[in-house]
Amino acid sequence: METLSPHNILVMLLSLGVLLAAARILGELAQRFRQPAVLGELLAGVLLGPTILGSLAPELNLFLFPLTGPNAIALDTIATLAIILFLMVAGIEVDLSTIWKQGNKGFKVGLTSIFLPFAMGFAFAWFFPGFMGKQAHASPLIFALFLAIGISISALPIIAKTLMDMDLYRSDLGMVVVSAAIFNDLVGWMIFAMILGLIGGNSTHGMPVIITIAMTLTFTAMMLTLGRQAIHKALPFVQAYTKWPGGELSFAIILALLGAALCEWIGIHAMFGAFLVGAALGDSAHLRERTRFTIDHFVSYIFAPVFFASIGLKVNFILNFDFKLVFTITGLAIICKVSSAFFGARWGKMPLREAWAVGFSMVSVGAMGIIVGLLAMDAGIIEEKLFVALVIMAMTTSMISGPMIRIILRYRQNLSVADMLASRYFIHRLEATSPREAIGEMLESPCRTMGLEKNLIEAAVWERELSLSTGIGKGLALPHARIEGLKQAVIVVGISKNGIDFDAPDDKLAHVIFLILTPLSDAGAQLAIASEIAGIFRNETMLEKSLHIKNFTDFMALLRTAPRGWSH
Amino acid sequence: METLSPHNILVMLLSLGVLLAAARILGELAQRFRQPAVLGELLAGVLLGPTILGSLAPELNLFLFPLTGPNAIALDTIATLAIILFLMVAGIEVDLSTIWKQGNKGFKVGLTSIFLPFAMGFAFAWFFPGFMGKQAHASPLIFALFLAIGISISALPIIAKTLMDMDLYRSDLGMVVVSAAIFNDLVGWMIFAMILGLIGGNSTHGMPVIITIAMTLTFTAMMLTLGRQAIHKALPFVQAYTKWPGGELSFAIILALLGAALCEWIGIHAMFGAFLVGAALGDSAHLRERTRFTIDHFVSYIFAPVFFASIGLKVNFILNFDFKLVFTITGLAIICKVSSAFFGARWGKMPLREAWAVGFSMVSVGAMGIIVGLLAMDAGIIEEKLFVALVIMAMTTSMISGPMIRIILRYRQNLSVADMLASRYFIHRLEATSPREAIGEMLESPCRTMGLEKNLIEAAVWERELSLSTGIGKGLALPHARIEGLKQAVIVVGISKNGIDFDAPDDKLAHVIFLILTPLSDAGAQLAIASEIAGIFRNETMLEKSLHIKNFTDFMALLRTAPRGWSH
Repeated sequence: METLSPHNILVMLLSLGVLLAAARILGELAQRFRQPAVLGELLAGVLLGPTILGSLAPELNLFLFPLTGPNAIALDTIATLAIILFLMVAGIEVDLSTIWKQGNKGFKVGLTSIFLPFAMGFAFAWFFPGFMGKQAHASPLIFALFLAIGISISALPIIAKTLMDMDLYRSDLGMVVVSAAIFNDLVGWMIFAMILGLIGGNSTHGMPVIITIAMTLTFTAMMLTLGRQAIHKALPFVQAYTKWPGGELSFAIILALLGAALCEWIGIHAMFGAFLVGAALGDSAHLRERTRFTIDHFVSYIFAPVFFASIGLKVNFILNFDFKLVFTITGLAIICKVSSAFFGARWGKMPLREAWAVGFSMVSVGAMGIIVGLLAMDAGIIEEKLFVALVIMAMTTSMISGPMIRIILRYRQNLSVADMLASRYFIHRLEATSPREAIGEMLESPCRTMGLEKNLIEAAVWERELSLSTGIGKGLALPHARIEGLKQAVIVVGISKNGIDFDAPDDKLAHVIFLILTPLSDAGAQLAIASEIAGIFRNETMLEKSLHIKNFTDFMALLRTAPRGWSH
Repeated sequence: METLSPHNILVMLLSLGVLLAAARILGELAQRFRQPAVLGELLAGVLLGPTILGSLAPELNLFLFPLTGPNAIALDTIATLAIILFLMVAGIEVDLSTIWKQGNKGFKVGLTSIFLPFAMGFAFAWFFPGFMGKQAHASPLIFALFLAIGISISALPIIAKTLMDMDLYRSDLGMVVVSAAIFNDLVGWMIFAMILGLIGGNSTHGMPVIITIAMTLTFTAMMLTLGRQAIHKALPFVQAYTKWPGGELSFAIILALLGAALCEWIGIHAMFGAFLVGAALGDSAHLRERTRFTIDHFVSYIFAPVFFASIGLKVNFILNFDFKLVFTITGLAIICKVSSAFFGARWGKMPLREAWAVGFSMVSVGAMGIIVGLLAMDAGIIEEKLFVALVIMAMTTSMISGPMIRIILRYRQNLSVADMLASRYFIHRLEATSPREAIGEMLESPCRTMGLEKNLIEAAVWERELSLSTGIGKGLALPHARIEGLKQAVIVVGISKNGIDFDAPDDKLAHVIFLILTPLSDAGAQLAIASEIAGIFRNETMLEKSLHIKNFTDFMALLRTAPRGWSH
């Protein structure tokens, strides 16, 4: 039996560890700069792939990521499983009832987003084949069809990830986009299967294209009706007669694997099977939260980053860079895709601003475009420079999507309390013994740093305190004020070993004091912050733990990992 | 870049789905018969591998599990990752403080369990090389060394899984065995590295054996001291400055992958690196429960079953079966390993019964023996029939381990309440309106089925009810009695829509009634059952949900997946 040699195992573990580490670190950094994590993850692959590491240290690059042999297969195996499991999670997150509700809009956006770019891409490739990088001996028709599909297909996983990263996935807008992307993808893959049929048969086995299409439609319809009901009925049996939580977890993963296998057999990409299984699973009220979380976390933070990073490994982006081609393809794709989805959304009677947001949500070509490009290159239809242009187009469209949506929707990521803390606004041992003293002590550092008039602010906080004491009980006090001219909310934390009497309803002394300053213009900020803090400290061990922390980092760690009062 | 073809992807997904499904179903069945799940998982591989499926439908077997090519590599990649992550979980579960406490005994057991079987195996192979399956041209010394190490090495993962399946892993006995197995494995792999050195260099790279040994010792010592402290210090930073729970999860997995890579580079098996990283991680009080659970569940119920099933795929057990050889090797291994670990435990002053339990815990040769055998076969030192005998010996030793420990320790798996329920003792709509009527109605079915005298039992339950009413509040009542001659506890469940007045302290009517009959001889059973039920129903949504279930299966599903009052 052919197995990995010790050297293969070494390379596999090292490359996986390094790839995951780079993807997660850059993903976290991207989020720090309010970008979707997927951007950082893609960039990790570009850094470790032929483009950067391959230029600086080609031997190390080929040692970690050999192009052929067992290690290439091993990495592709992991990436393939990763994308399938990621699509399963995307499916579980889909809210089918919202999709039905948004189905009409989603259908219209899906329809325009595939056919308009297809027509425009076809026209360009047909009239300028040489400039667009056609191989001399390739058929102009096939070439034009390939380019057209490469531009019109959408990247469901990247679209889903971008929306998830912005907490828009389950919104109405998100569900219009997701249902459009599902439609786009299904139709796109069917057209793609037809084109592959034209150049000599489907890649899996010699099934006529019409049968592939019929089976795809049948499978989709079945999974969303009978399959959905069967899963809903089966879940209580699995829960009742297997060991919890293992039975339900295995059941979900096994279904996803088999659904993916079925779609691969039908001739469309395996990931759709996993997506549909996920959608059917997630729709059942019987699926337990714990199973959802276990799969979601393991997949989102381990498998997905590996997959997205692995995309960047596939090509040298500098060597095969043709500026004019990249510019043309990227511009063409952005204009075609944004405008067509925009028209679809307007056709669906969406407001102007939302229609633009839909346009920029559908712009991501992502991995789909790369897969189409790869197959076209393998089939000798396009040159390497066009492949690189397709990849850069796919990445660029994925990169502009998030920021553009953010600008259009004037979207502000909800900062959590932990995001607003800073070590310089943290007093580990408050010396104050009265509320008045505590407020003065805690205002010291922010007023100095930001050049604020301390007396005025202290007066404002104290006035509020006198009108309504802010000791909310359970050892917590939240003195606060709205301050004119403040740009953004400031939170100062003070911890008092002995406790300070903030006149709480339960008569307990306050040990953890959050002093909250919010801009006068932002009416809701104070309440949002206060209720998040109260939620965190509803868990009674939190106060005890706060008194035992050693430094600011410990306190941050405690807040971030606290079980929230309202979640599981 | 070499990638999986659509056909490869289809086979990979299908084989993985089928393998996982078979492993999990047989694993659940094994547990139903009070055997460790790992037995069923191993058997799944034997069924789907060359032995059974390969004989009945060889084409299907080779379609699913080809011996060469990308799919063989893909499956081996997944199995390799699986064993590494499983060892990481085993490491997280290790309680280092207990290991230090049990270290002396563990050291003695480890020492005898490796050297005595080694000496005996060597002697046998040296004096009867032909009978034992030596290749004609292989050196007698090398052959004897290989067989000796094949018999003396222990399977840390199977030992850990067997102990975990019986909830013995974190007991004192479990920790003696685990520390002995760690010692055995580390020394075993070092000896193995030396033997490989004798026949032409270490398999990874040409590192002298002495350096491998020195590095192994250094790495082990470092991980358990400096590495442990570094991880403990790093965890709050990861929690404080990355997105929860993703940062901590990725951090743990990345460390395990890199630790595994380092051990593979040193020249011992990658899994030890993951094990040691896991031990260091699990030792930190900063590692959050949620991360522990996410990793544990995904690995134990997805990765580990795939690994253990994949072992059974490797060989045809019937074709290469030589009864005398199998019998000799297996007998030799069992006698050598059990007696040597027994002597070690007695040397460590353990009581007789525990010493035998240690002996049978250390008997598992498992995957380690198979890996040694594979390498020996690849190096042309042993014949196929000896390889098969080694595999059967490895499996047999793994199979007898659990049952023998159970017999020796007179171990009874603690049945959960859900395990004791049966649909015939479940009344979905109680008609009774008083406690007396309810008890009568609920005793109907068990008395009929078991041929008990209903009047007597009803009188016993009612007498108990009169002396102390069993309505415990929150809509729950637990009438009960200890019955002479009853073989095992019986629980009858009745659900009353309208509620019955069991005179609860909170004056609420009882809607869910558990009637509990326990044997007169089993004094603790009643209290254990009652407190488990009370724990489950401490969560206030449970009563509400119980009133909305549709049938027995729904009720079972509810009980099994209920958040327990005392766990997270």
